[in-house]
Amino acid sequence: MEMKKRLVLPIDRGSPLPIYYQLKEALKQQIESGVLKPHELVPSERELEEAYHISRMTARRALEELEAEGYIYRVQGKGSFVAEPKIRQGLLWLTSFTEDMRERGMRAGAKVLKVKVVRDERVARRLGVDPGEEFVMLQRLRLADGEPMALETSYLRRRFCPGLEEHDFTDRSLYRTLQEEFGLRLGRAEQTVEAKVADEFEAKLLEVRPGTPMLSMERITYLDDGHTPIEYVRSVYRGDRYKLFVELKRR
Amino acid sequence: MEMKKRLVLPIDRGSPLPIYYQLKEALKQQIESGVLKPHELVPSERELEEAYHISRMTARRALEELEAEGYIYRVQGKGSFVAEPKIRQGLLWLTSFTEDMRERGMRAGAKVLKVKVVRDERVARRLGVDPGEEFVMLQRLRLADGEPMALETSYLRRRFCPGLEEHDFTDRSLYRTLQEEFGLRLGRAEQTVEAKVADEFEAKLLEVRPGTPMLSMERITYLDDGHTPIEYVRSVYRGDRYKLFVELKRR
Repeated sequence: MEMKKRLVLPIDRGSPLPIYYQLKEALKQQIESGVLKPHELVPSERELEEAYHISRMTARRALEELEAEGYIYRVQGKGSFVAEPKIRQGLLWLTSFTEDMRERGMRAGAKVLKVKVVRDERVARRLGVDPGEEFVMLQRLRLADGEPMALETSYLRRRFCPGLEEHDFTDRSLYRTLQEEFGLRLGRAEQTVEAKVADEFEAKLLEVRPGTPMLSMERITYLDDGHTPIEYVRSVYRGDRYKLFVELKRR
Repeated sequence: MEMKKRLVLPIDRGSPLPIYYQLKEALKQQIESGVLKPHELVPSERELEEAYHISRMTARRALEELEAEGYIYRVQGKGSFVAEPKIRQGLLWLTSFTEDMRERGMRAGAKVLKVKVVRDERVARRLGVDPGEEFVMLQRLRLADGEPMALETSYLRRRFCPGLEEHDFTDRSLYRTLQEEFGLRLGRAEQTVEAKVADEFEAKLLEVRPGTPMLSMERITYLDDGHTPIEYVRSVYRGDRYKLFVELKRR
């Protein structure tokens, strides 16, 4: 039996680790090592129950957590399947979503949700600029090969790019426009990364269930003089599709 | 009325943003700007309901999401309070938890959950070493000023540090021990960051509710020759207490 062959994995009943957790880790290993391939059918609750002599509840919990962590996805009436590996995003270079996607051979797209000239005290305070200053607020749903990946809200200091709000950013890179139309060269950015769960608003836009883990990022971008803030961005990336990568050095 | 004064915040009923979301953002702003201070009482559902003429459900949802995002915490029978700001962890230097905490004037501690000599194919594959190689597996709950912050599981290549499993790591830095007892100098590390939600096992240890957002990190540490892998670490940090910080440069 192919399923049996695949599932010769150690479940140690004497371990302090719960059985469901061991099963989850074992299935993860099968996925990460490529024994179970993307879009391949994952053993069902019943199959796991029989193969391991565990309760249906235990099998269900392992599968539920694998789904919550983005390793598998469910199709109503068909079962669970192995998800695509997460997109691995480096945290070193200041790049745009468009550039990131192009680099990995994916088609970047956007659905513009809102473009507006606004004043916003909170954003002004983050950038350390006058609270009355005007921003061009641009809210976009970011797509990779047509699939929603992130919700991105940028605030650009309008005095540096008056009329930016007239451009259509459906198929156009914001950073390229800043450079080509307004001669603005970006230098560096400060970015924070937090974990959150999708609220209903984000879940609907990103086509995930509320409660799905998300990477929430905040970025302040500076011009190439290194100290003039030009942009404040809040992004929410799907945690089931994205992971970040960074290299650390010993001091 | 003090509450009224505090809550003069814009709720725009013509906006496409849901009311609960606007309320949540408004309360966040009050917290981040310091109008509402750590451990200060947050307006109750009933107070929000009356102040904004919104439904109790809407007020509840805003508070629930603020709690899920770590901005407030609830005390049974007493109400919601503003949480401490998150600990901001830089992603540049390869440091230990002990070093990180000391730098910010907090007392690092650990509860050793498991120390064991093991073989582990998955870890060996990650490090690119022989699958039969022995590791010292060290699983610790990491504490800052006595509060559980992270669950950390390290695998050290035992051939480089035989007998490491005999040490007590309750109050001792692993990295310092590697250097002082075994003459091992660390050079660099590759780290990935993912968002996940706490499973029941993690939730119990970290004293959070299952479903709380977490930062899940994986690290491969190399010696100072830059290419000899010495350690594989999996950590789960409380997303309600931690955020990461990184500086990006334009290529």
